[in-house]
Amino acid sequence: MRAALCTTFVNTKFDPDSFCGRKREVVFQNTLLYQLKVLKDTGRYDAFKLKWHPSYSDEPDVPPIPNHLFWDSDVAKWIEGACYFLQEHQHAEIEAAVHELVDMIRSAQQPDGYLNIHFTVVEPEKRFSNLRDLHELYNAGHLVEAALAHEQLFKNDKLLAPLEKYVDLLHATLGPHPGQLHGYPGHPEIELALLRLYKRTRNPKHLALAAYFLDERGNAAGADGSRHFYDAESEKRGERFNERPHYYPQRRAYWYQQAHVPIVEQQTIEGHSVRAMYLLTAAADLVGIESGQEELGRAVLRLWENMVGKKMYLTGGIGAIKQWEGFGIDYFLPQGTDEGGCYAETCASIGVMMLAERMLRTSLYGGFDGRPQPDGRFADVMELNFYNAVLTGMSCDGKAFTYVNQLASSDNDLSRRSEWFTCACCPPNVARLLGYLGGYFWTAKVDEAGKNVSIYVHMYGSATLTVPVGDSIVTVKQVSDWPWAGKIRFEVHAPEGVRVDLNLRIPSWASEWQLPSPLMDVPFLNGYARVPATWVDHNSKFELNIPLKPRVIRPHPYSNQDIVALARGPLVYCAEDVDNLWVDDHFKSVIFDPTSRITETLETDPATNEKYVSLTAYDAVSFLKTPQRSPMPDVPSAEERGNVPQTLKFVPYYFRANRTGKGHMRVGLRRKSG
Amino acid sequence: MRAALCTTFVNTKFDPDSFCGRKREVVFQNTLLYQLKVLKDTGRYDAFKLKWHPSYSDEPDVPPIPNHLFWDSDVAKWIEGACYFLQEHQHAEIEAAVHELVDMIRSAQQPDGYLNIHFTVVEPEKRFSNLRDLHELYNAGHLVEAALAHEQLFKNDKLLAPLEKYVDLLHATLGPHPGQLHGYPGHPEIELALLRLYKRTRNPKHLALAAYFLDERGNAAGADGSRHFYDAESEKRGERFNERPHYYPQRRAYWYQQAHVPIVEQQTIEGHSVRAMYLLTAAADLVGIESGQEELGRAVLRLWENMVGKKMYLTGGIGAIKQWEGFGIDYFLPQGTDEGGCYAETCASIGVMMLAERMLRTSLYGGFDGRPQPDGRFADVMELNFYNAVLTGMSCDGKAFTYVNQLASSDNDLSRRSEWFTCACCPPNVARLLGYLGGYFWTAKVDEAGKNVSIYVHMYGSATLTVPVGDSIVTVKQVSDWPWAGKIRFEVHAPEGVRVDLNLRIPSWASEWQLPSPLMDVPFLNGYARVPATWVDHNSKFELNIPLKPRVIRPHPYSNQDIVALARGPLVYCAEDVDNLWVDDHFKSVIFDPTSRITETLETDPATNEKYVSLTAYDAVSFLKTPQRSPMPDVPSAEERGNVPQTLKFVPYYFRANRTGKGHMRVGLRRKSG
Repeated sequence: MRAALCTTFVNTKFDPDSFCGRKREVVFQNTLLYQLKVLKDTGRYDAFKLKWHPSYSDEPDVPPIPNHLFWDSDVAKWIEGACYFLQEHQHAEIEAAVHELVDMIRSAQQPDGYLNIHFTVVEPEKRFSNLRDLHELYNAGHLVEAALAHEQLFKNDKLLAPLEKYVDLLHATLGPHPGQLHGYPGHPEIELALLRLYKRTRNPKHLALAAYFLDERGNAAGADGSRHFYDAESEKRGERFNERPHYYPQRRAYWYQQAHVPIVEQQTIEGHSVRAMYLLTAAADLVGIESGQEELGRAVLRLWENMVGKKMYLTGGIGAIKQWEGFGIDYFLPQGTDEGGCYAETCASIGVMMLAERMLRTSLYGGFDGRPQPDGRFADVMELNFYNAVLTGMSCDGKAFTYVNQLASSDNDLSRRSEWFTCACCPPNVARLLGYLGGYFWTAKVDEAGKNVSIYVHMYGSATLTVPVGDSIVTVKQVSDWPWAGKIRFEVHAPEGVRVDLNLRIPSWASEWQLPSPLMDVPFLNGYARVPATWVDHNSKFELNIPLKPRVIRPHPYSNQDIVALARGPLVYCAEDVDNLWVDDHFKSVIFDPTSRITETLETDPATNEKYVSLTAYDAVSFLKTPQRSPMPDVPSAEERGNVPQTLKFVPYYFRANRTGKGHMRVGLRRKSG
Repeated sequence: MRAALCTTFVNTKFDPDSFCGRKREVVFQNTLLYQLKVLKDTGRYDAFKLKWHPSYSDEPDVPPIPNHLFWDSDVAKWIEGACYFLQEHQHAEIEAAVHELVDMIRSAQQPDGYLNIHFTVVEPEKRFSNLRDLHELYNAGHLVEAALAHEQLFKNDKLLAPLEKYVDLLHATLGPHPGQLHGYPGHPEIELALLRLYKRTRNPKHLALAAYFLDERGNAAGADGSRHFYDAESEKRGERFNERPHYYPQRRAYWYQQAHVPIVEQQTIEGHSVRAMYLLTAAADLVGIESGQEELGRAVLRLWENMVGKKMYLTGGIGAIKQWEGFGIDYFLPQGTDEGGCYAETCASIGVMMLAERMLRTSLYGGFDGRPQPDGRFADVMELNFYNAVLTGMSCDGKAFTYVNQLASSDNDLSRRSEWFTCACCPPNVARLLGYLGGYFWTAKVDEAGKNVSIYVHMYGSATLTVPVGDSIVTVKQVSDWPWAGKIRFEVHAPEGVRVDLNLRIPSWASEWQLPSPLMDVPFLNGYARVPATWVDHNSKFELNIPLKPRVIRPHPYSNQDIVALARGPLVYCAEDVDNLWVDDHFKSVIFDPTSRITETLETDPATNEKYVSLTAYDAVSFLKTPQRSPMPDVPSAEERGNVPQTLKFVPYYFRANRTGKGHMRVGLRRKSG
């Protein structure tokens, strides 16, 4: 039992005028109410009343998955997000809705503890009959997470108690014992939820069930000593040899849900990217909780390395393949639909952040190799995902969303936002993520005596962390205009006798950084600059400076993409047609000179009131001589383009698709070579 | 009724010491007998005896397609190829086998004319119940082609008569009338066979059935006025919503067999590449045979342009995607499995040659736009495919084959040959192609009065064409060491009063060429240098010179591959480990300087006795600094490679995998940019 419950998210207060504070305000002021309205309009809000809804008769978009199958989780994620925000803000309407929803959920629970809309109202006889394709346990996991957030806020177990009862039923139904189903969810989520629950309850059943799901997954002989559980289950359903859902490119493509082999045997990250992230989040957490999980820890690290090194976009996005919403082969990272695909689902990048957060926490507690030392590389990727692949998923007003986040638009997939999705996983997930944001900013560890506090600062902004130490508190305040400016002022307050050391992440992209000169001599370890307690004792205020400058980034050469993109600090940039009115081909024929002069402008967009640093490149553009007609595959004839624009303007990728325009956008531009 | 029966293939004699002559000799001396042995060993030879074979009980590799379903066509293609070679050579064993096979086929015909192994022996009740997936009509088409070759050789109808009877049954069973099945084959082949048959028989039923199949294909309401034939057929079979064969990435992916919309509405070339080529071959032929097919002619040209300009590899190979053995999206042309796929099936490139041949013939008869003028671009692509994507499919000794012809090997797909395949379409197809090779070399047109002969020479080598004109003959002889040397000597003999003009293809890759000076002033049209009859009258011998020099070729920039390859004349080159012993990564990290010095060497490989020109580049190689460990997707750390080799040797791509080695090979190398 090592890694502690993460409490930094609830103990962090953001400056509402800071970048992150503003994003959170948008969610609180707009998104939660907007989504509440959508929940009501679509029937989700009342669904736990267990009445029939006309949409239950709809033909599913992706058989055999009913369109309404995720409704439980949509509601649960909204409750969870709402509870995070209600920690800081009062809001009568939101609070009333949470209470009403909780009452409905309580009333929907069956006498035996079962709690699911579809399998109570529509197909009660099919409970636990298709763990592979249906989202029964996934929904349960989100309800558990909602219950934990609810209990933390309201200090009662009105939602937690029924969920504990439901988990008891699951624990009795699924497991290794004779008479139990030896199964595990096709869409992981309950594993990470059970581990969060366990840290709250310390009920060994909760740990055991999570560990069982993680350990049993991919067992080739799990069903009955000779068959894969999903094979046995599918046979029991009477499925035919060639019968398979749309997302399976092949029969038995169980890598789709990371169940082709046991996790500890997986060498590369495969399949549906959200499922992979949720699964590994639980695995990384388990490594930190339970001793003896070294092999699982090695698998988590191996799969992380494979993902970040070979299957992650410049924006942090993951998943190139639309059919299975997931990973392609190593280095297969086309930017858009017309180049071979690009998925980069918002939820998947939220999953990357969750995984990174668990890995940081587990490593702080020595879970991976015994050394209690987080690795800044995890935080680098967490921050990359946050500022780019996640934030791009929500509009500045918090009312429009993207599900897929391609790095380049095309005629078939313009860079545009939607108001909602049939499978509405992403919008409430962004809201929930921003609610929990403090949990990603820093990790705190207090020794058992309550004398020494170590704080790892992973992300920067303007926020204050409160760490309870015995009866008193330590506060750490950071003030900055991050991600627009690189100066961060820290102020630490500790009660007498409590020693606080700070460990400040120096991003791997930072070519230089400054701390007060004595600190520059302190050994730099795993991506964190150490500010020792001995120094903090006498210097409660100090400043870190990480100069933010435009830089040129490129994908791995094995991606076969000779492109460059601009970045500044943690932000990756894109070009949009609204700033570059001449574009008519999604910037596909643009050749960009990476040595051109680039200037920065701090500006505020009048329509959205969004403040950001834009970049402008001068005399950087020429155009590809695009072959018009090819008599042979190898003999292009040339066409010259006319005038070339003198400037090319870039905005942060997260800001794309917030203004009017044609929906033409591109991150990586063809590199001008000598 | 315009385009005539192609007879140039039977009237061409190759110099056995020339490049093409040697390849043909290998097939005659080795391949036919080797394949005959395989036919016997595997059970195919005796299958028309209609006895049970144990393999009929095997689980299919690709359900619902029995592994033996193609056996009819394997036998038919062998007969067809054998008959082409027996035109020139006597061979008792081969001839005896042809006769015995023909007898067995005759004996297998059912009283009503039906003729198919599987649907007579294994599932007689399932005749015509799955045109979409099973190869019933495909087999029939190959039998028709075999019968035509057989009749041309033996001047009897022992095989043609039963096939005509079978076609009568098909004509009665399938068609637009009430009570008929309004279907068409999932794998086209019978259409082109019926048109070949029609040109021999002039039986309007043969034309009508081919035209019906081409016209009905893709009709959204074809089955019963409201449904697609394949939907109705699938429902009749009781197939479920999510039931689909392996090769269908989605339900109703009828683009797989080019049946998603009618051919005339198809805008891009899609799906299984062999099927597409066989289908368009028939379509191009029909445009030349039947007047009023302008819309179909435009579709053929449109789909050809899309294929050549956007979906063809540097080698001429087509098909990037393994799952459906076919086309990906525009410009998606990775070189190998580890870069996203590459299929380039041998049969597909044979299909490209067939299509190009029909397009040349149809255009010579004015079928596309009324102007009787072939387009040299079609022949450029035909030659490109022959020397690269087709010939690479067979080893120098004619006994080992490739099915897939990737442009780069990888650890999972080494550049290696097999002795046979379960689905054995490619090996006998190469044999058949070489048997028919004269048909691709030139197209001849004799006017109705028999006074004027136009000959278009598409390909070069050492061969003599005989064109019957009334009771006498015109002969055209070409002598050259093509593809190793570019000088071609022509000699034309025409009887008194017959005027012969020659039209000599100047390949689009040729940067220069020479003919006797008066001819250089004759207008050059559509890729052919014209040698007018007035000139031939007084100059029966003359020489064309197309200097062959190494050149650097590159794929279209939208393929996102910054690579270069070497070519010389019609040949595309590759680097193999056997010549470059230091390679250990399939040349993946090689950076090639396209401005380096390149020398040519005419050499003979001692093991295979193959003569070829090799290319050697000097001081051309450096190595990519391959990132070892990536903390972020955009920040590769560098590793330097040690010594660089001073030379890089290339051999023709068709010659790959003929010597021992590790199976490391690559066509396109990373381009060194300034």
